[in-house]
Amino acid sequence: MSHIDILISEVGPRDGLQSIESIMSTQDKKDWILAEANAGVREIEVGSFVPPKLLPQLADTDEIVRYAKTIPDLTVAALVPNFIGAKNAIDAGVDKMCLPLSVSESHSKANLRKDHNQVLEEIKKISDYIKTLDESNRPEFEGNLSTAFGCTIEGKVCEKSVLSLGAKMMELGCNEVGLSDTTGYANPAQLKRLIRLLKNEIGGENLTSVHLHNTRGLGLANALAALDEGITTLDSSLGGIGGCPFAPGASGNIVTEDLVFMLDAMGIKTGIDIDALLAVNQMVKQALPNEELYGFTIDSGLPKGYTGGGWGLTE
Amino acid sequence: MSHIDILISEVGPRDGLQSIESIMSTQDKKDWILAEANAGVREIEVGSFVPPKLLPQLADTDEIVRYAKTIPDLTVAALVPNFIGAKNAIDAGVDKMCLPLSVSESHSKANLRKDHNQVLEEIKKISDYIKTLDESNRPEFEGNLSTAFGCTIEGKVCEKSVLSLGAKMMELGCNEVGLSDTTGYANPAQLKRLIRLLKNEIGGENLTSVHLHNTRGLGLANALAALDEGITTLDSSLGGIGGCPFAPGASGNIVTEDLVFMLDAMGIKTGIDIDALLAVNQMVKQALPNEELYGFTIDSGLPKGYTGGGWGLTE
Repeated sequence: MSHIDILISEVGPRDGLQSIESIMSTQDKKDWILAEANAGVREIEVGSFVPPKLLPQLADTDEIVRYAKTIPDLTVAALVPNFIGAKNAIDAGVDKMCLPLSVSESHSKANLRKDHNQVLEEIKKISDYIKTLDESNRPEFEGNLSTAFGCTIEGKVCEKSVLSLGAKMMELGCNEVGLSDTTGYANPAQLKRLIRLLKNEIGGENLTSVHLHNTRGLGLANALAALDEGITTLDSSLGGIGGCPFAPGASGNIVTEDLVFMLDAMGIKTGIDIDALLAVNQMVKQALPNEELYGFTIDSGLPKGYTGGGWGLTE
Repeated sequence: MSHIDILISEVGPRDGLQSIESIMSTQDKKDWILAEANAGVREIEVGSFVPPKLLPQLADTDEIVRYAKTIPDLTVAALVPNFIGAKNAIDAGVDKMCLPLSVSESHSKANLRKDHNQVLEEIKKISDYIKTLDESNRPEFEGNLSTAFGCTIEGKVCEKSVLSLGAKMMELGCNEVGLSDTTGYANPAQLKRLIRLLKNEIGGENLTSVHLHNTRGLGLANALAALDEGITTLDSSLGGIGGCPFAPGASGNIVTEDLVFMLDAMGIKTGIDIDALLAVNQMVKQALPNEELYGFTIDSGLPKGYTGGGWGLTE
């Protein structure tokens, strides 16, 4: 595979699909994942190992993981809320598991029905279990600090809690920690500050990814700020699925197409073919006829004569 | 007036209203301008001195300028396409005139029906005329390099042309030069590079403003990049008027509310009260019942417990 500068981690099949009412068919999910991988996307969060009665949209996650694992050069990630979910994820063969720990304890209780200590216990059980596996079978285990920039229930969150929970997750055996702007509250200055502080706390090599939302339109500005601080993995959702800010309550993920366009235009290598990616949008749109997909680049089209790779930079 | 770090120049009454079909009543324009000034906006481009038959939406610009001039502490700006427009603008009492010179000559001919030399001649006539005025009556005269980042007709534009046309405008008597991403083609890397090159060409003090569009969703990321390069004036349009990217052919200005939210949250002083600004959006929405206003912050609301001024930065 060719060298890339920034890894785009597509979260649409998980964060997107869990936020909408439509249930995408298993075949359509497979087609989507394959098409995005073929467009050059190298990491996809394909589902969530939660009880199907809680998230019927993701009930086929096991099958989706097993399928996605047949695609070459794709890191197959999944969300796990607890030890049982992690065990199922490992059985299915995921490359990477992400467990969200909400810095806002009210949000943690509302979301996972667990307080901090209970979530940390699950993390310990999972990492202890991973240690029992052959080294070649150990998935990457990432702890995500969700609501790290503010919470819709509590408002401000305490920066010191972000740092101490991040340190605790590393101590309990996570391979790395990610920062999540679950609520779309982050601004570039706050983001830069928190990245610096957390890197200082847990080591720069252990904080490489951020999960940003575009709820207040700051998603790409925040992405740019994160790059300035050395972040190398950015989450985003194709067609902003589950994230149209015009639909109240939507999560508002960054739109993959817009993010890739920005990076590509800047000459930052993502390995993704923007034209192929825009074609995936059309395909997913057809698979979700009752959902609104959105994004600026898909609506406006690429600039005239666009050739990518730092287009417009020199002349 | 209190100190500000960044000047937001509201262009909605000009760039916004000229791009939509609805014609806003003169009274509604006055109410809008007054309400935004009361919210703390210190510069507003209130109209354009072009023949009413070309832009009937802005036919009352003369009256609007005279009214806006009665509002304390407001810089009243207007677009002028040529010497006749400039004379009318000066007679009406504008504080600032902006003349667009399109770097793409095809665009210049399509937009102003003039090639570069013809536009430069108008600039010379205007600055010669300004010199005949009492010093106290001289408006600021800014030359705007439009399509500076690419053109919908020509595609790429030549960076050297941007620089030489900027230098020429200064030589002919403009007080400063602005860079305009008329087509929404700019990316943060290209923008930073061009700002640096142009500052180097004409002197940093003569390039303080950029006019960015959000056509491909990069507006705020570009704004952030511009701030990094020392730009201190940013244009934007309330409610993204005339700029909804979902409407084909729309211009796609940055949304003032989102820009102000970003800067305010970062602790960057604009002098603008975000709550009062969001209220102006509602007022303008009522005055334009047939137009789609948009923006992320107006839809999502401010973060819970938001107090502005670097909110969330320390704890």
